[in-house]
Amino acid sequence: MMDASEFETLLGVRARACEAALDALLTATPAPGEIARPERLVAAMRHGALGGGKRLRPFLTVETARALGLEGEGPLLAGCALELIHCYSLVHDDLPAMDDDDLRRGRPTVHVAYDEASAILAGDGLLTLAFDVICDERVSADPARRLAAAQGLARAAGIGGMAGGQALDLAAETAGAPLSAEDTMQMQAMKTGALIAFAVDQGAILAGASDAERASLARYGRALGACFQIADDILDAESDAATLGKRAGKDAGRNKATLVALLGLPAAKARREALAREAEAALAGLPGRDVAVLAAAARFVASRRN
Amino acid sequence: MMDASEFETLLGVRARACEAALDALLTATPAPGEIARPERLVAAMRHGALGGGKRLRPFLTVETARALGLEGEGPLLAGCALELIHCYSLVHDDLPAMDDDDLRRGRPTVHVAYDEASAILAGDGLLTLAFDVICDERVSADPARRLAAAQGLARAAGIGGMAGGQALDLAAETAGAPLSAEDTMQMQAMKTGALIAFAVDQGAILAGASDAERASLARYGRALGACFQIADDILDAESDAATLGKRAGKDAGRNKATLVALLGLPAAKARREALAREAEAALAGLPGRDVAVLAAAARFVASRRN
Repeated sequence: MMDASEFETLLGVRARACEAALDALLTATPAPGEIARPERLVAAMRHGALGGGKRLRPFLTVETARALGLEGEGPLLAGCALELIHCYSLVHDDLPAMDDDDLRRGRPTVHVAYDEASAILAGDGLLTLAFDVICDERVSADPARRLAAAQGLARAAGIGGMAGGQALDLAAETAGAPLSAEDTMQMQAMKTGALIAFAVDQGAILAGASDAERASLARYGRALGACFQIADDILDAESDAATLGKRAGKDAGRNKATLVALLGLPAAKARREALAREAEAALAGLPGRDVAVLAAAARFVASRRN
Repeated sequence: MMDASEFETLLGVRARACEAALDALLTATPAPGEIARPERLVAAMRHGALGGGKRLRPFLTVETARALGLEGEGPLLAGCALELIHCYSLVHDDLPAMDDDDLRRGRPTVHVAYDEASAILAGDGLLTLAFDVICDERVSADPARRLAAAQGLARAAGIGGMAGGQALDLAAETAGAPLSAEDTMQMQAMKTGALIAFAVDQGAILAGASDAERASLARYGRALGACFQIADDILDAESDAATLGKRAGKDAGRNKATLVALLGLPAAKARREALAREAEAALAGLPGRDVAVLAAAARFVASRRN
C-alpha cells in the first residue's frame, strides 16, 4: 500500500515529465507537413496549457500502462494528448459566452491575457494538436493501438462525452428548472468523467490489456471520474479562491447543477467515499498486477484539497 | 477531356453522396464508447454542416483516389472528415469575436440561429468528430494509411495550417500595416490552401500512391488551393450577396489582406489563370492515370461564379 505522501511525490514527478513533454510539443517550429506556426498563437496555447495543473489525466494513463507492464515514452505522449484536450476545454469553457471566467490556476484566462479570438483559436489549436500527438508513431509501435487510442479520445472528448457534457451543463444553467440528480450524474459522467475514464482506458489500450482487465479498469475509471467530480463540487462549496486558484462558490452563485446542491453536503461526502471504495474494489479484477499506485490515486482523488 | 457541364454534374452527384454520409454521421445516436449525444448540440452541428456547400474537398479526395484506382466508401468517409473540419472552421470564423458574420450559404450562421456558446461547442464537436471518422476502420483496411491520413489532417487543420492561417489573417486585420503580397500568400496557403492540398493528398495516401505520384499531386494540390483562394477574393470583390450567399465586398470593407487589393484585379485574374494551368501541368506527373476529372477541377476552380 502506497501512503499519501509517497503518492503526491510520484504525482509531482510525473507532472514535471508531462510539463516538459508539453513544452516540447508546443513549439513555434513547424512539424513536417505544416507551413508555419504563428508565434502569438503558440504563445496563447502555451499560456493555456503550461505552468500548472496536477496532470492527473496523463498520470492515470502512465500509471495504468505501468501497472500492466508498459513503460516508456508512449503512454506519456498519449497522456499529453489527453491533457491537450483537457486544456483546450478549459480555454473554451472560460470564454465570455461560456462560463465567463477571468482566473484559472491563479492566472488570467487566455481570453483575458490575449483576446477572445486568440482564445477560440488557441483552443482549436490545442484540440487539433492532441490528434497529431496521439497518432504519432512514438505513442506505440502498433498502429492498431494508436488508432484505437485516437478514436477513443475523439469519442471521450466529443459530443457523446466531454463537449456534450458541457452543452448539457450550460443548458441546465439557462433552463428554468434544475437538473435531477440522475441527469446531473449523466452530465458529469460526460463533462468530467469521460476523459478521466479514458485516461485509464488508453493506458490499457496501449499496454494491450486483456478484455477482462480492460473491463475492470473501465469500472475503476468510471468510479474515479465520478469521485473526482463530486470532490470538485464539495471543494467548490467549501473553499475560497486562494486555495482553488479560481473563483470559488461560483457553482452555487450561478445555479450550476451539482450533487452538493441536490444531495446536501453530508450525503455528497458519503458518496465521494463510496465512489473511492468502488474504484479500489474494481482493482481486484487485476490479479497479479501491481495496482498500488492506482489504489492510492482513488484515495487521493477523494481527499484532495485543491 | 471533361467539359464544364459534365464536371458540374459529377460534382453535384458527389456532393449528394457526401451530404448523405454527413447526415448519417451527425445523428443523435451515440457511437460505441459515447454516453449520450445532446439533441440541441447535434442540431447546431447539423445546421453548421448540412444543407449546402459544393463539398469540393471531399470531391477532391474521392476523385484523387479514383484516379489512382481506389473506389468505395473509404475515400468518401475521409472526405467527410475533412468537410467536418471545414465546417467547424466556418462556424468558429463566423463568431462575433472572429469575423462576426450573420449569414452563411444564405442562412443565419450557427451563433445567430442558436447562441454563441452552442456555436463554440458545435464547432468543437465537428472538429472532434472529424478525427473519430478518419480513424474509423471503414476508411481503409490498412491501419497505417488511416493513421497517416489522421495525422496529416491534424497538421493541415492545426496551428501550422488552417487555424494558424486564420490567426495570421485576424492579426493582419487588427495590425496597422497591411500584409505584403508574400505574407498574404503564406497566410492564404495556410488558411485555405492547406485543407485543399490535403484533400488531394489524403486521396493519394488512401490509394497507396507512389512517392513520385504523391509529389506531383502535392504540386497540383498547392496550385489548386492558391487558385481557389484568389478566385474567392476576385468573387468577393466583384459579386453581390445574392450570388455569394454571404456578405459581399466584406474583405475590402474590413481591410482584409487579399491579393486583389495588393495586385489589382487584372493581375489577380492573370494569377488565377496561371495557377489553374500550373495545377493541370502537375498532372503530367501521373502517366497512365486518368486525370481528366482532376484537370477539370482546376478549370472549374478558376472559373466558378460562387
